[in-house]
Amino acid sequence: MKSSSKISAIAAYLPKKICTNNDFKKIDIDDEWVIRRTGIRERRIAGENEFSSTMAINAVKNLKKTYHTNIDDVDMIIVTTFTPDYLTPSVAALVQGYFDISHAGTMDLNAACTGFTYGLCVADALITTGQNKKILLIATESLSKILDYADRNTCILLGDAAVAMLLEESQGEGLCIASDFFSDGKKAGLATCSNLSQQYNEMVLKNKQFEQDGRKLYEYVLKNVPIGIQALLKRANLKKDDIDWFVPHSANYRMIEALCKRLHIMLQKTLISNEFYGNTSSVSIPLALWMASEKKQLKKGDFLLLYGFGGGLTHGGVIIKW
Amino acid sequence: MKSSSKISAIAAYLPKKICTNNDFKKIDIDDEWVIRRTGIRERRIAGENEFSSTMAINAVKNLKKTYHTNIDDVDMIIVTTFTPDYLTPSVAALVQGYFDISHAGTMDLNAACTGFTYGLCVADALITTGQNKKILLIATESLSKILDYADRNTCILLGDAAVAMLLEESQGEGLCIASDFFSDGKKAGLATCSNLSQQYNEMVLKNKQFEQDGRKLYEYVLKNVPIGIQALLKRANLKKDDIDWFVPHSANYRMIEALCKRLHIMLQKTLISNEFYGNTSSVSIPLALWMASEKKQLKKGDFLLLYGFGGGLTHGGVIIKW
Repeated sequence: MKSSSKISAIAAYLPKKICTNNDFKKIDIDDEWVIRRTGIRERRIAGENEFSSTMAINAVKNLKKTYHTNIDDVDMIIVTTFTPDYLTPSVAALVQGYFDISHAGTMDLNAACTGFTYGLCVADALITTGQNKKILLIATESLSKILDYADRNTCILLGDAAVAMLLEESQGEGLCIASDFFSDGKKAGLATCSNLSQQYNEMVLKNKQFEQDGRKLYEYVLKNVPIGIQALLKRANLKKDDIDWFVPHSANYRMIEALCKRLHIMLQKTLISNEFYGNTSSVSIPLALWMASEKKQLKKGDFLLLYGFGGGLTHGGVIIKW
Repeated sequence: MKSSSKISAIAAYLPKKICTNNDFKKIDIDDEWVIRRTGIRERRIAGENEFSSTMAINAVKNLKKTYHTNIDDVDMIIVTTFTPDYLTPSVAALVQGYFDISHAGTMDLNAACTGFTYGLCVADALITTGQNKKILLIATESLSKILDYADRNTCILLGDAAVAMLLEESQGEGLCIASDFFSDGKKAGLATCSNLSQQYNEMVLKNKQFEQDGRKLYEYVLKNVPIGIQALLKRANLKKDDIDWFVPHSANYRMIEALCKRLHIMLQKTLISNEFYGNTSSVSIPLALWMASEKKQLKKGDFLLLYGFGGGLTHGGVIIKW
């Protein structure tokens, strides 16, 4: 595939409120059990009036502050989220409005937890064809707004966060080496959140609440994601050992351990964001990238394999050169 | 911009139930008043168990039947909608699941009524960069599900529909000549539909119901869309007279008359879909294309200027060569 974009900035926003495992004592959950089962110690929770757009705007503020960068000439804003404030306006339009960016397109993109890898490929493609010159790509999720805090299967797992990235034209090599995406819509019932429909096949869904069958999703991921990753490597004409960093969707540390074992990838080469932030859906991959970039773990020229999976069901990813 | 895709098939699905202007007599609305004010005679209403995914699937069934075409090798499904069945799974994943397409990415894209023009540019870009080879691009809206049928300002205007298109690699010239997108998120309050947030600034929003300030939107469109269209023509290095067909979002016939007057475009060169289908949001532009294609109005090589506007607020479009 042709690619001529580069990532020129990345910043995150994490809501102030920390929810520890001990906060779930009232539903009979203890710290050690959560850590053993998921690797999660804490997650952040958005305030009552803090939504996906609020967090996206704060991530962009942090990006501007950190890089002293101008975003007035951004000509496209792409937001990946499955938890937008409104059905309309889009989160992207609210970001544009806040910063009063004078001439930018705005779209929200939903592929659930796989969303960021799609957003990155779309942003890269729009720059590569010359349609856009400077794109603000933001992943933002206010998952606490769709959680039933009495449901032990979901509420301990998810957290709120946003990450903003700036993509621009690259003079040299492009960012994306190869991408590959898969879907299994027949298994859609394993991870659902209602909207205009309150029913999926025979299942009656709770109103605007995320529900999942954790065990079956685990089996699905362990069976299908290794196949997808092998296909992606083949498409990139790369071998597993060429990859410097493996960045899977940070759903669950135990799941990632099992994936690494199956794929013979060293855990040390893996970037994970869920220990202090939980599963942040489409934010989890860029959050891991931001954390690694803050720690100066990423070197120019490193090959990164980003791979998402989740609601849809969907899985897929992209290999990029940092 | 570089472009190397072509549209190889287009088909529509229209729900069976017809709602005429006389059906609004109970809210004191008469046929002639609606026609004079909006140009709308009828609109289609999805059945109780018919959602955006159901209509999208039916549009794809019609596409398969009309073109005797194989969609098993589709490698990406992009759905434009602001009325998805669920927050997750996406409509695109449900379409993939229904047709059991073996190896396809799936994403939903929301830019409200401007959504289709974004979807077309994204699909074209993914094919042009070589990331995808065959894309199913579907616009689908179940607007009746977010209407208050006591609200005279909205319920008479909107209708349900879906259109599916197939985009493939072009051996010769590409489809897209130029695109240009604008947003005005500061004016987001003029067209809203709640989701996880029930409030926009000081406005309390009705639960999952579409609300708009028709008069202010009319003024916004009349002021901004002509500027956007002039910018798009300039970017394409084309003059207004080079355009064979002007395909604006079919919001309201009177609005389109006024736009044409301001732009000195003959109404006869305009493709409109709202007389029998109402304002179908992101479906209105592809629906007008499908109607023209059914009537054999479009000739190979025709220049078409597609231009959307609506919730966000957003406006923007793309010039394509048929």
